[in-house]
Parts: sequence; C-alpha cells; structure tokens
Amino acid sequence: MAILGHDTACPIAHCLDVIGDRWALLIMREALRGETRFSGIQSALGIPRDILTARLATLVDGGALARQSYQQPGQRARDEYLVTAAGRELFIILSALGEWGVRHAGGSTALRFADATTGELVGARLATADGRIVDPQQVVAVTL
Amino acid sequence: MAILGHDTACPIAHCLDVIGDRWALLIMREALRGETRFSGIQSALGIPRDILTARLATLVDGGALARQSYQQPGQRARDEYLVTAAGRELFIILSALGEWGVRHAGGSTALRFADATTGELVGARLATADGRIVDPQQVVAVTL
Repeated sequence: MAILGHDTACPIAHCLDVIGDRWALLIMREALRGETRFSGIQSALGIPRDILTARLATLVDGGALARQSYQQPGQRARDEYLVTAAGRELFIILSALGEWGVRHAGGSTALRFADATTGELVGARLATADGRIVDPQQVVAVTL
Repeated sequence: MAILGHDTACPIAHCLDVIGDRWALLIMREALRGETRFSGIQSALGIPRDILTARLATLVDGGALARQSYQQPGQRARDEYLVTAAGRELFIILSALGEWGVRHAGGSTALRFADATTGELVGARLATADGRIVDPQQVVAVTL
C-alpha cells in the first residue's frame, strides 16, 4: 500500500501531470469549444502568456492537443492547437468535474456535452463493461 | 464567450478548487481506499505535513471529506477523515483520470472500481439521461 503513493507509474498521477493543473483544464475547455489559437485562448481565459505557453506544451506532449502551423495569405505563419482523439476523451473528465461542481459547490454550467448525432445531453457515469450504469454510492475501490 | 474564463461560478473551476490539486486527488485516492487517519495518509503518500493539513482542510470545506474525532481507550483524541457521499461521487473522476492515464500516458493501474454487489469492474463513460453509452468521439461541447 505505502509504496503506491510514490508510484510514478500510477496512471491517475500520469493524467494529472498532463491535465491536473487548473489552467490546463481551462485551456482544454476552450479548445474543446473550438478555440484553436493562442491569442483566442489567452483572451478567453485572461491567462498570463508564459503560463499559457508552458501549459500548451504540456498538453501537446501529453497527447491531448496537436500543434499545427497555419498561414493565411499575406500573414505570417501561426500555430493552432487542435484537440486530438485522446483530448476528446477528456470530455468524460470535464463532464464529471462539471457535474460534481454543480451538485456540490453550487453554481450552474454553461458548458454541457451532447451526442453529436441525436443532440441528447450526456453526462459522466460509472458503467460496467456491458454498459450497465452503477450508482457511485454502490461502488468500492478495489486493488487488482 | 470571453467572460466565461473569468467566471468564478463555473462548476468545473469550483470542482478544481476542491480537488484540482494533485495532492488533493491523491489524498482522496487514499481515503477512498479506506485510509482515514492523518498519519496513514501521510506515510502512504510521503506528503509534507503542512501540505496535507491544508489539503485536508480544503477537502473538508469542499464537502468531499468529513472530519470526525475518535478516541481509543488510554489515547488522546485524534481526527479521522471519512469519505462523504459527495466524496464517493469522485469515483467517477478518479476512474476517468485513471483510464485516460492508462490509455494515453502508459502504465497500468492497481486501483480499480467495482460494483459492491456484483463485483463487476466499472469505468467512467458518457451516457444519456436514459442510460445509453455514447462514445466521446461522438460528443460535442454545447453551450446552453
């Protein structure tokens, strides 16, 4: 048990290295909304430029964003930041964080997630491999 | 759009205030495993005592843990930290973080979550209100 706290291979810790920072998650929120440019993310969040540079690098290294160069006629080349498939899987985490915040810290959310085909809203749930939803109060932590 | 980044009422930001810190999530991991005492959490994680004190206070204030006094015969009273119902809902977030870490940052996890009744392992998924699981790649962010 004791050694697990120092286990750098723990995937929860790995994921937190990439997106455990508050700014990193807010950046992903903007990117998932479709804001792909440094300047757009910067002005949406009011984040210091040096911190944004560092967090974008971490998100690119972690595979959540892909950096791509684009150039419009007559303008210099700029980077844009595109959400990867791995980045889209963060929907689950963002959705879970948002729902928890609404239920237990008050407030309401302007950001929700929906099935692109049917438009139905979706939320983060715990489910078995065959798709049965399980109440978190009925769940226990197990060590394999 | 721009104002949302500064919106302190954002529930994602609220939730991150409580559990967005790496130590806070690791503390919850230990608490969900059943480690209820300061000294137990401290030795499992190797966390500095002042940081543990501060993070436990935030988790108690945020409603994820409840502080309770207990006393064994002949010993002085100590605090223990019990996971609340709101804290158990963090299973969804921990599970989602762990799964993302396994898939995209490598490693494997010793910590899994299971239905207490059937023993089936559960994982974090996006689902509609009527319980239909939706692939994250089929999901879009919507602003209500």
